[in-house]
Amino acid sequence: MNEKTRAEALLVLVEEKQYHQLLRVLDDMNAVDIAESLEELPFEKALLIYRMLKKDVSVDVFSEWPSDMQERIISSATDQELSVIIEQLYVDDAVDMIEELPAHVVKRVLRTANPDTRRLINQFLHYPEDSAGSIMTAEIMHLHRDMTVEQAIAYIRSIGIGKETVYWCYVTDPTRVLEGIVTVKDLIFAEPEELVGEIMDREFISARTTDDREEVISRMTRYDLPAMPVVDKENRLVGIVTIDDAVDVMEEEATEDFEKMAAILPSERPYLKTGVWTHAKNRVGWLLLLMLSSLITVKILSIYEAAFAAVPLLAFSLTMISGTGGNAGAQSSTTVIRGMTLGEIGTKDWLRVLWKEVRISILVGSALALINFARLMIGHSDQMMACIAIALSVLASVFLAKTIGGMLPILAKVLRLDPAVMATPLITTIVDASTTLVYFTIASLLLGISIS
Amino acid sequence: MNEKTRAEALLVLVEEKQYHQLLRVLDDMNAVDIAESLEELPFEKALLIYRMLKKDVSVDVFSEWPSDMQERIISSATDQELSVIIEQLYVDDAVDMIEELPAHVVKRVLRTANPDTRRLINQFLHYPEDSAGSIMTAEIMHLHRDMTVEQAIAYIRSIGIGKETVYWCYVTDPTRVLEGIVTVKDLIFAEPEELVGEIMDREFISARTTDDREEVISRMTRYDLPAMPVVDKENRLVGIVTIDDAVDVMEEEATEDFEKMAAILPSERPYLKTGVWTHAKNRVGWLLLLMLSSLITVKILSIYEAAFAAVPLLAFSLTMISGTGGNAGAQSSTTVIRGMTLGEIGTKDWLRVLWKEVRISILVGSALALINFARLMIGHSDQMMACIAIALSVLASVFLAKTIGGMLPILAKVLRLDPAVMATPLITTIVDASTTLVYFTIASLLLGISIS
Repeated sequence: MNEKTRAEALLVLVEEKQYHQLLRVLDDMNAVDIAESLEELPFEKALLIYRMLKKDVSVDVFSEWPSDMQERIISSATDQELSVIIEQLYVDDAVDMIEELPAHVVKRVLRTANPDTRRLINQFLHYPEDSAGSIMTAEIMHLHRDMTVEQAIAYIRSIGIGKETVYWCYVTDPTRVLEGIVTVKDLIFAEPEELVGEIMDREFISARTTDDREEVISRMTRYDLPAMPVVDKENRLVGIVTIDDAVDVMEEEATEDFEKMAAILPSERPYLKTGVWTHAKNRVGWLLLLMLSSLITVKILSIYEAAFAAVPLLAFSLTMISGTGGNAGAQSSTTVIRGMTLGEIGTKDWLRVLWKEVRISILVGSALALINFARLMIGHSDQMMACIAIALSVLASVFLAKTIGGMLPILAKVLRLDPAVMATPLITTIVDASTTLVYFTIASLLLGISIS
Repeated sequence: MNEKTRAEALLVLVEEKQYHQLLRVLDDMNAVDIAESLEELPFEKALLIYRMLKKDVSVDVFSEWPSDMQERIISSATDQELSVIIEQLYVDDAVDMIEELPAHVVKRVLRTANPDTRRLINQFLHYPEDSAGSIMTAEIMHLHRDMTVEQAIAYIRSIGIGKETVYWCYVTDPTRVLEGIVTVKDLIFAEPEELVGEIMDREFISARTTDDREEVISRMTRYDLPAMPVVDKENRLVGIVTIDDAVDVMEEEATEDFEKMAAILPSERPYLKTGVWTHAKNRVGWLLLLMLSSLITVKILSIYEAAFAAVPLLAFSLTMISGTGGNAGAQSSTTVIRGMTLGEIGTKDWLRVLWKEVRISILVGSALALINFARLMIGHSDQMMACIAIALSVLASVFLAKTIGGMLPILAKVLRLDPAVMATPLITTIVDASTTLVYFTIASLLLGISIS
């Protein structure tokens, strides 16, 4: 059953006031599905159903919603209802929400939160965007070195419910400095009287709050870690990044890269839920920039007007040559950008990348040049020099495109820019201009045409 | 310390026969790092160090290696060593390895495996590629409904070590049909005398062995599940897919999509470790196809030769128009393909996508057309009709490109092709041909040029 039919079923039940049946249906539904169904309903009905949910379900539903829905719910909630929402939300979800809310709503939210929660939220709000601090969970299971395994398990039982990840326990000293990690697995397999300090793992990998979130996640996937502790400058434990946070971030980052590589400003919301104006705004800027930069190619064309007019074969082949160059360049830039994202290629590898692309481009370029030459000679054997010029230009543009395409993302990284921005469209524009120039230079030399 | 310097340090120790020190260094290293360092060493030295590793570390190191390194190790191993490797490997890792090995090596591997392992490996080898069965883990913690919580914990303690995911336990009946799920968290928080059958969750989400792995993973991320049970046609439990398998698959699929969208055949190995010939082979096919299909545009150009020669402004602007069209189309196709990968857009949404792209393209196209018209009129106010023709063509090509770019990936899905193949380069080629045609049609009509 998809969200639409689910939503319709809920709507019928609430309109016919069959509340018993409604509660039974809601009981069988997952919070994710409830959240999506309620989004489809008229707001008044959604609010009515939302208020009928159990407290723990309602908070899960709430944290699934996009910020505009959250804002409407908050505006309709009493101070007491709002306080329940805030206290039940995980701090990182509360922070995500607050970052999207308008200022006057934020004020009301922080006013209704209790002082401890407010302090924690404020602390989280100060972590830089895209840092480990900004994605971590504050709810952690703390243990002490001197606890016995039996005491530790009893302690977990006494306070554990509600902690996002109960399986990873962190052993800290009285100043909250992280000393070791114990998993629930370790506790289960240890003898009850053993000390936590004896069985804890002291060789753990941790991250700093200010570390880049992508780097933290690539370390987690590299070492197959389901959770990574995050410490501050003084090595005090402040949170953990869990693998499901990591999964969300990975999808988000991949989407952002796809968008950047297609010359679109990254957007936060799914395609179908984004308005036409926002789509247009996110797309028009780069298109305009690329359009204007293609005028460089137009300028080059106008300089070589004479060669153009004299040999029509040359003019017609330009599309094919610059198209092939653009595609060849996109192949190299995409491969290198993806390799950099996955941590397989670093800036120090630039010479290896260059040397590889040089050899690849000679192989690929020669093959394409030969095929082209053969194809051209079939119909135009009387213009052999033009055919040679075109074939050589194919080789030259594949060579240029692949070396430029391979190097620009690395150059971007060195200049502390995002390599993904150096992708397909920008490379195509640069390659267009350079292949046109190379093509006409080769043609003028071989055919003895002088520039007008 | 990166892999190179780590590898050099190991090499020095092994060459100077400082085995005590070597063992101490290996003890402090993570299996992932050992695997990468050994790959950098001469094979004889790597093998020597590999044989010095503890049994559990050596199997982790082995499963990290690419298949060519695994093959060399297997070829150098005695039957007894080989049997240890096979029995210690997780079945899914063993299967991944076997799929890459040459037939005679596979035979030897299966011969040295014990009958149970061999049966399991053969079963796994029959799951379709990219299915849930092909990525699942066979090691599962089975519990029975009638166990008490205390018995369950004792049972887990007695056999739990070595199971990849001990935190998720699966309650099955005597025929292995899955009845419910219990987490270790549930067990810890329950009273010792409660029955597993009373606390287990019967409302679980499961996958079939033949389900597409991408769909399984998108369900896991949608519902934030760290593990998903996989059942066969008779609902018998055969394995689980864990979130770290999912993470690997997600990265792999994203890389594949990036490659396809840049017109490259997907490759298995990292960029720097792939040979030049393989790179060239993976790239040349699509380039050739795209080059030949660009001849359609060349053909269209030659038909409109007359219009071309008469108004040079028209000829020069073609690059700008088809470039803008290509970029606009790439934006739409990339967004739609990504939305389909994330499950946000389905084939049933085609009309909504079309309507959105139509409106976006009119907004974006009009803006670009107006800017172009203004720009052209500054230098060419004497050729107003040509300027109008160019501006209109910009609008028309953005419109065409965005609607084609938005629809082709959906059409591909309907035809059961991979939407990613319909990406940037192919769209660019199609858009090139159609914009050229539209451009010259508009120009001939407005300027009254007849086709030669």
